[in-house]
Amino acid sequence: MGYDQAWLRYGKDKPKEKLSLEIKCKKSPILENAIEELKKDVRIFPENAAFTLKVDSELPKEGYRLQVVKESFFVYGGSDVGILYGVFALIRAARTGKLHVSEAFEETKIPACPLRMLNHWDNMDGSIERGYAGNSLFFKDEKVHDHKRLKAYARLCASVGINGTVLNNVNVRGEATYLIDLKHLLKVKSIADLFADYGIKIFLSVNFAAPMTNGGLETADPLDPKVRKWWRKKAELIYKTIPNFGGFLVKADSEGRPGPFSYGRTHADGANMLAEAVAPFGGVIIWRCFVYNCQQDWRDQTVDRARAGYDNFMPLDGQFSDNVILQIKNGPMDFQVREPVSPLFGGLTKTNQMLEVQAAQEYTGQQKDCCYLVPIWKQVLEFKTCAKETDDKVKDIITGKTFGQTIGGMCAVANTGTDENWCGHDLAQANWYGFGRISFDPELTPEEIAEDFVKEAYGKCGKKAMAALTTILLQSTTTYEKYTAPLGIGWMVNPNHHYGVNVEGYEYDRWGTYHRASHSAIGVERNSSGTGYSTQYLGANKAMYEKVETTPEELLLFFHRVPYSHRLRDGRTVLQYIYDTHFEGVEEVEQMIALLESVQEKIEPERYTRLRERFSMQLLNAVEWRDRVNTYFHRITEIPDEKGRKIFD
Amino acid sequence: MGYDQAWLRYGKDKPKEKLSLEIKCKKSPILENAIEELKKDVRIFPENAAFTLKVDSELPKEGYRLQVVKESFFVYGGSDVGILYGVFALIRAARTGKLHVSEAFEETKIPACPLRMLNHWDNMDGSIERGYAGNSLFFKDEKVHDHKRLKAYARLCASVGINGTVLNNVNVRGEATYLIDLKHLLKVKSIADLFADYGIKIFLSVNFAAPMTNGGLETADPLDPKVRKWWRKKAELIYKTIPNFGGFLVKADSEGRPGPFSYGRTHADGANMLAEAVAPFGGVIIWRCFVYNCQQDWRDQTVDRARAGYDNFMPLDGQFSDNVILQIKNGPMDFQVREPVSPLFGGLTKTNQMLEVQAAQEYTGQQKDCCYLVPIWKQVLEFKTCAKETDDKVKDIITGKTFGQTIGGMCAVANTGTDENWCGHDLAQANWYGFGRISFDPELTPEEIAEDFVKEAYGKCGKKAMAALTTILLQSTTTYEKYTAPLGIGWMVNPNHHYGVNVEGYEYDRWGTYHRASHSAIGVERNSSGTGYSTQYLGANKAMYEKVETTPEELLLFFHRVPYSHRLRDGRTVLQYIYDTHFEGVEEVEQMIALLESVQEKIEPERYTRLRERFSMQLLNAVEWRDRVNTYFHRITEIPDEKGRKIFD
Repeated sequence: MGYDQAWLRYGKDKPKEKLSLEIKCKKSPILENAIEELKKDVRIFPENAAFTLKVDSELPKEGYRLQVVKESFFVYGGSDVGILYGVFALIRAARTGKLHVSEAFEETKIPACPLRMLNHWDNMDGSIERGYAGNSLFFKDEKVHDHKRLKAYARLCASVGINGTVLNNVNVRGEATYLIDLKHLLKVKSIADLFADYGIKIFLSVNFAAPMTNGGLETADPLDPKVRKWWRKKAELIYKTIPNFGGFLVKADSEGRPGPFSYGRTHADGANMLAEAVAPFGGVIIWRCFVYNCQQDWRDQTVDRARAGYDNFMPLDGQFSDNVILQIKNGPMDFQVREPVSPLFGGLTKTNQMLEVQAAQEYTGQQKDCCYLVPIWKQVLEFKTCAKETDDKVKDIITGKTFGQTIGGMCAVANTGTDENWCGHDLAQANWYGFGRISFDPELTPEEIAEDFVKEAYGKCGKKAMAALTTILLQSTTTYEKYTAPLGIGWMVNPNHHYGVNVEGYEYDRWGTYHRASHSAIGVERNSSGTGYSTQYLGANKAMYEKVETTPEELLLFFHRVPYSHRLRDGRTVLQYIYDTHFEGVEEVEQMIALLESVQEKIEPERYTRLRERFSMQLLNAVEWRDRVNTYFHRITEIPDEKGRKIFD
Repeated sequence: MGYDQAWLRYGKDKPKEKLSLEIKCKKSPILENAIEELKKDVRIFPENAAFTLKVDSELPKEGYRLQVVKESFFVYGGSDVGILYGVFALIRAARTGKLHVSEAFEETKIPACPLRMLNHWDNMDGSIERGYAGNSLFFKDEKVHDHKRLKAYARLCASVGINGTVLNNVNVRGEATYLIDLKHLLKVKSIADLFADYGIKIFLSVNFAAPMTNGGLETADPLDPKVRKWWRKKAELIYKTIPNFGGFLVKADSEGRPGPFSYGRTHADGANMLAEAVAPFGGVIIWRCFVYNCQQDWRDQTVDRARAGYDNFMPLDGQFSDNVILQIKNGPMDFQVREPVSPLFGGLTKTNQMLEVQAAQEYTGQQKDCCYLVPIWKQVLEFKTCAKETDDKVKDIITGKTFGQTIGGMCAVANTGTDENWCGHDLAQANWYGFGRISFDPELTPEEIAEDFVKEAYGKCGKKAMAALTTILLQSTTTYEKYTAPLGIGWMVNPNHHYGVNVEGYEYDRWGTYHRASHSAIGVERNSSGTGYSTQYLGANKAMYEKVETTPEELLLFFHRVPYSHRLRDGRTVLQYIYDTHFEGVEEVEQMIALLESVQEKIEPERYTRLRERFSMQLLNAVEWRDRVNTYFHRITEIPDEKGRKIFD
């Protein structure tokens, strides 16, 4: 059925049996996989093309250099992995029209982020927390599962430079606690081996309380010698079984998960204890900063969840071991379609950092609605933190340019599953693809990535269809934002499952996610006279967010409480902006559908049908968002739409 | 542990072995059970009391007459069941202080409602839909279960005159569909036999699609001869197995349950077809009128769920067979703490009717909060329908006084389960008890019933404690109403589970339950210029509900949309009334707790602890209701509390 293709749609021709090939690299399974790719895409290179695959020790291990001279194709890599990436890049360059066989071509790339990881929130029963594309590729019936699609998954990941993957959910419960035990490790190893042949290291999420649940100890206190010893022994066992094991991902003291707080210890104590255990084997500990009070009283306006990550982790800067990485969500809340950038970026100077984004569209349409996320990630990467005069953007920090850290990078909560098209929505593949591309090269633009994705995945559909799909992808981000929560306020979703509109859905709940809309005003004041969140930023950013006048309008309601009558720069009131964007959002979905329908005959029927069905769901969703949001604000303000459009009573 | 006692707390003395007893009644298990009761309560009657139990054929079968002359106690009954009721009444009279052994006493009672039933919403996996007191007494692990408490249950029911019980949930799904098959019927029979010995008939809820699911037919069309034959055969089987089987309860074409609509047939077609099957055996069909569109679009103000019962069933009046009873919920919506009386009462003149109330506190505190429901039921029973000049109250209709129906009565969704105290909240027993008492004798007042309950259940605690508990019970109804949804508007609850406050919880949902609160007004206009619901009432009632000025204030927002500034009769605005009642509600819970604490030492520690814990939960709930409701209306109106009390922003 072609699930192994996704964006690697090489056509149905039989692979070549022989290539004209010169190899200057030690034989390895990775190299074999690179050669296999060259053989597969038979149409893209001339019949008598000659390939040279060569290690160039001047390049970093994962770097590559391409050279095309007449019909000779040279791929240099810092190692076999670099060669593999080079081969995928060569094929992509050819297939996206950047490389013309008759012209000279040269490209050198070194991945920007040392770690480019996926975090799977897969449970051992086969379900996926916040999964919108079927079941787990790794687990089934409380066991590790050798899914037939694992090789295809690894190949697709490698083709965009992803070099790490966390197999299991950060919420480690039930049987998943025992994944680090021998009963499951041998099966984990078989996945690790398969993935290693595509340059991908595997990681596991662990339960901080494992010394108790798995080891029978009476404590999981990170300063207890017995606990430290238990983890060291555990690490020994794991690395003996899986020598290229990446390390542990840990969600501790967050949303009910156990952690060092139970023992009066700090996150640094907890992380360093684990770091000590994996250090002898070159392992790393990835420690999540998603820590906040999830039992907040809505009455209490002195607490601000947005502050929590910074308040919890800034005091620990410099206390983490060299092989600990803090994993920081892009925004201070939780993957809303619009949030400011976490002030931990720029705040932390002496700590390894990884930017966490969410390819899984939890709050962004759940892969029913189309929402291309790369523009959001790009904005985060380009955010100037004011930590230094230059080279202080988020992309500089996580790649080590700002403060010199050598480990760190970027990870995405994965959006894949057992659905035939991997991601539920065919266009959601662009987020998986795009995550790999942008973490490898943050200089790429969302436009370039969307174009590349469409050319690779829909290259046979012709120019008009490709243009339509690219337009849809690039439009989708702002459209989704328009018909959902306005001006950075977020959270107007149905509780628990998070799909669909519910303006007061989280308003009086315990999660710290309030808009406090009243008859005349909306928003939470987060500047120095409010919760003080804006003061966590540095220099010009701090000044910018302090005042309504200088706050970027798309984040206005995140940082400030304003009357609905507040005029935006274009002269519209906040209320009229809410009405306008919600009408526009629906209109834009209708336009996307018209655009899709206009190229129906160019797209294979099966893919078209799937796409069309998703857009029908999206339109229903957008209409419901429009009507409920507009009615809510019309009821509370009793101010009519200036343009007299239909708002229900 | 005494669960068999509940309000029959006879003390721990060994039962008497012999009584001075004269019997003029055929021996029967029912009679044996009556005698057993007399032997149990050894303290209440003089040592040498002489009892006469006698059938008096002048009395209806379930009627009784008591006579006490000196130390001779005469119990006359229309049958053995009448004698059983008489014995329980005699014991109650003695224990509640109405009967003084040294004084002459006489009491004759004939139950007002022919049917006095409980509806259990028990599922075969042992769970109870809307159950708040543990698991099912009748089912476990998909089988009928001989629970050790079944005899105690039957005895408690009989002590208050309950004469029927539906064992399984009206939503008949999964294995419950096969309860009417031989595989389960023999076990059902064992319960039926046990209950028969206490004068209780059992009924089963059936799946209208059973001819297909159980019988393999291709249709369940009520006019199809094969379907009719299938049900006749099924009834034969059931009555052969359980000769005193009561009949079927049916929820059809409601909230997704199958029904005659699928075949273009009416509710009358469906009910009459089943009635035909059970008629030869004296069975009845109880058909629920809870039929409405549960896929409503909140935007559509032309649809009013309140109208649905009347609109669906009034046109069918006179079309139902003699052994069909329509079961009508007390209000047009769904067991809210305040609703008008269903206009089907008084509307239907040629149809057998049963009033359905809910002892299970789904929307009234879920047996965590104390809410004595008898006052609500009493108001319904005393509601003058205007169907005639006299004898036209709901109690007159369901007892046959108004239109001469000979079957009908009253049923309550049961609030019992496997919890040690049967009902979760010890005081929730008063609703089970009270339902039996008031359906037997609608002339009783809620005060009398509360006093009797407390005397029976807490007789050993002394006068002060009894007075405190009676005060708490009688206070609880208005207190609960005060801190929850105001002025008859209802539905401000958390979706799905229905406990706790959520002002907009059902506002944009598909259930037809909207308050449409805006900045200046709240409520749905249901008079002739609105949805027309009020026109379903007769005569003076229709006129009364038509206008704001004549509508009873406790139902103001049910019938009318008014501005918050609308003045109530006492001069307060609607908004100020909302604020006031929500502050008062919490204060009253605090008073109830103080009252309970003041008699702590008089109540057995175990019962006191349970009670005190429930009241702590209730206080938390009431505070949350107060704060969220007040904040919601303060935000939307921006009008402060006139008394300057704390309302959170």
